[in-house]
Amino acid sequence: MSRDALYACAKQLEDRAEEIVEVLGAETGLLEGRLRAELERTTGQLRLLGDHGAAGWRRESPGIVTVPVPVGTIAVFAASNFPLAFGILGGDTASAVAAGCPVIVKAHPAQPRTSELLALIGSETLPDFEVVYGGPDASLSLVRDPRIKAVGFTGSLAGGRALMDAAAARPDPIPVYAEMSSLNPVFVLSNYDGDVAALAASVTNSSGQLCTKPGLVITASAEFAASLANAVADSTTHRMLTPAMAAAHAAWQTEAESLGEVVAGKGEPTPFSVIAHEWHPSFGEEHFGPSVVIYLGDELPEWEGSLTATILAGADDSAEARALLPALMAKAGRIVWNSVPTGVAVVAAMQHGGPWPATSAPWSTSVGPASIERFRRPVALQGVPSEIWSPAGDLNP
Amino acid sequence: MSRDALYACAKQLEDRAEEIVEVLGAETGLLEGRLRAELERTTGQLRLLGDHGAAGWRRESPGIVTVPVPVGTIAVFAASNFPLAFGILGGDTASAVAAGCPVIVKAHPAQPRTSELLALIGSETLPDFEVVYGGPDASLSLVRDPRIKAVGFTGSLAGGRALMDAAAARPDPIPVYAEMSSLNPVFVLSNYDGDVAALAASVTNSSGQLCTKPGLVITASAEFAASLANAVADSTTHRMLTPAMAAAHAAWQTEAESLGEVVAGKGEPTPFSVIAHEWHPSFGEEHFGPSVVIYLGDELPEWEGSLTATILAGADDSAEARALLPALMAKAGRIVWNSVPTGVAVVAAMQHGGPWPATSAPWSTSVGPASIERFRRPVALQGVPSEIWSPAGDLNP
Repeated sequence: MSRDALYACAKQLEDRAEEIVEVLGAETGLLEGRLRAELERTTGQLRLLGDHGAAGWRRESPGIVTVPVPVGTIAVFAASNFPLAFGILGGDTASAVAAGCPVIVKAHPAQPRTSELLALIGSETLPDFEVVYGGPDASLSLVRDPRIKAVGFTGSLAGGRALMDAAAARPDPIPVYAEMSSLNPVFVLSNYDGDVAALAASVTNSSGQLCTKPGLVITASAEFAASLANAVADSTTHRMLTPAMAAAHAAWQTEAESLGEVVAGKGEPTPFSVIAHEWHPSFGEEHFGPSVVIYLGDELPEWEGSLTATILAGADDSAEARALLPALMAKAGRIVWNSVPTGVAVVAAMQHGGPWPATSAPWSTSVGPASIERFRRPVALQGVPSEIWSPAGDLNP
Repeated sequence: MSRDALYACAKQLEDRAEEIVEVLGAETGLLEGRLRAELERTTGQLRLLGDHGAAGWRRESPGIVTVPVPVGTIAVFAASNFPLAFGILGGDTASAVAAGCPVIVKAHPAQPRTSELLALIGSETLPDFEVVYGGPDASLSLVRDPRIKAVGFTGSLAGGRALMDAAAARPDPIPVYAEMSSLNPVFVLSNYDGDVAALAASVTNSSGQLCTKPGLVITASAEFAASLANAVADSTTHRMLTPAMAAAHAAWQTEAESLGEVVAGKGEPTPFSVIAHEWHPSFGEEHFGPSVVIYLGDELPEWEGSLTATILAGADDSAEARALLPALMAKAGRIVWNSVPTGVAVVAAMQHGGPWPATSAPWSTSVGPASIERFRRPVALQGVPSEIWSPAGDLNP
């Protein structure tokens, strides 16, 4: 039973929590509190998906029962920014196992010790589980492997697109469920008078290396802009996941200084905001790291598909919010109201997805029980006597 | 309301039934009885999808309500073999409209009068509805059009693959829901003693131009093979949809004569079976037209993904059926028991899809209410007051 395996995997992660926090902390720079919270999220996710996968579902019409079957072997690409929740034993692996599929995970090359530890736990607990190592060539080979029937990926737009192109060029094209690049704009309405502390923390926590980090704040209030920029500058950061990411963040700060007023704090990476009255195309792109664009211009900028869009509204902002909402729903997978987009609860209704370039498959979610359906497909049994097909319940472990 | 528009469309199809049957019959060669049945199926489908689209759905967790939104403009490619049910006003158009999406339909070039008539009815009843004309270049241009967010297609493997390649090469890749090539194998178990008449009719009805036509029958009984072959040869056919299809059918008969014993009837197209003890790769391919491969060999052949797989079982065949079923569920989207695969009911549990090359998207169905979900995606509303988001109900017409 996949459920038992996922429970055993969660148990072993808990049993080895101290070792995990130590190894992952040393290798990623992520802080202990964050890693402990992520571990709890990951073990909860393994158990939740195990339960939902085992429960299965049915569509019924007279003479027809439709049930899910696993699609085949899944290739999972471990993300670097969530080494547990989106890593080797993260949501993609858990949902594929819950669906009853064999899994081949490609480890993230920046985290060899983390990979070794998590691969060991997976090998000891999960059926049909394998970890492979290497660079871009190994990634493309895995996607081209005839055994692979679907791909789960969390990472960069360039990386995701390369996998998509390889998958689409196969003799038998396969789906790639890639979560890539998200701006996560925040719209501050006229009467919002809330604190800026939570929003600043959402920008800088984990040194801004979260897929739902708010990258753009749109406000008409120079006062709100200054207040947020000061709170961001006052934040503490820790080292970024890789030297390349740290260099990209520093380069973005240099570029931003020519595009608006940069309010920077201290530390490495340096937390900063760029306050601008004129729109620039760079403001519409995702920038990993503890930075945010605060846009004070009159024209609502064009923005691409995003995982989230956030509305910060005060009293009497209802009409403005109602007018804005349809455009946000047309561009994002989740609308957040008077809160922050970071922190994605693993619950039944969660939608963690969104239009291109946020993901390659906006109809799907990579968080929550519905993520299992990426890795199984419906089969209609028409007139098949139940005593014949119930053994096929083996297909729905 | 999309529902009202779809109902109006169904009503107009009914009001103009005589004209439709006359024009389509003259242009396609399909018989009056078949066209009247297809018209009824099509109007029922328009109303059913309208009802389901309007009903919508919700996923709820504490603080989160997830609702569907339309993905944007849909490109639909009208199929020639079901000019009503999979044509300009067929299931792809109906499900896209039910999802709240604008639709641009590419007419089938072999059916200009049919296209003109159905385009007129669509224009008079459906919102945001357009029909475009042309050959392969027009098809590729439509898929590359930046407005298009998803594609529905029923047709050949080569045609579907060309659209998929164009969609995957876009700056923003979009999903193609293509139904293409299906063998629909029939497995005759040891003790089956049913009649061959229904199976022969399933091969030859509509001159074998149905996507679920059984193309391969696997049996150990030479007697069953001979009986089925005689029934197929005794069938009456009508002219095929296009001269190219008729030529391909004739060429397949010539090829088949070198691969096994051909039992042919009379008429144009000629109904025939090829009875073979040795497997040949051509037997694993879809052949449009009134023909079937009857395979008497010992080894179960390799077959590709299929829309359907059928089991014909007699008393005491339960163990054999149980052993066979998992392999069939791994390859097909619908398992038919002691019946024929042709005739796909438009009901809630229907799954009309299957692994490559039957379709490009085996997780989806092109028949039944679930087909609507191809053209909308979930959006999670987190903490959004219901008085703010309920106007967004406009997005779910």
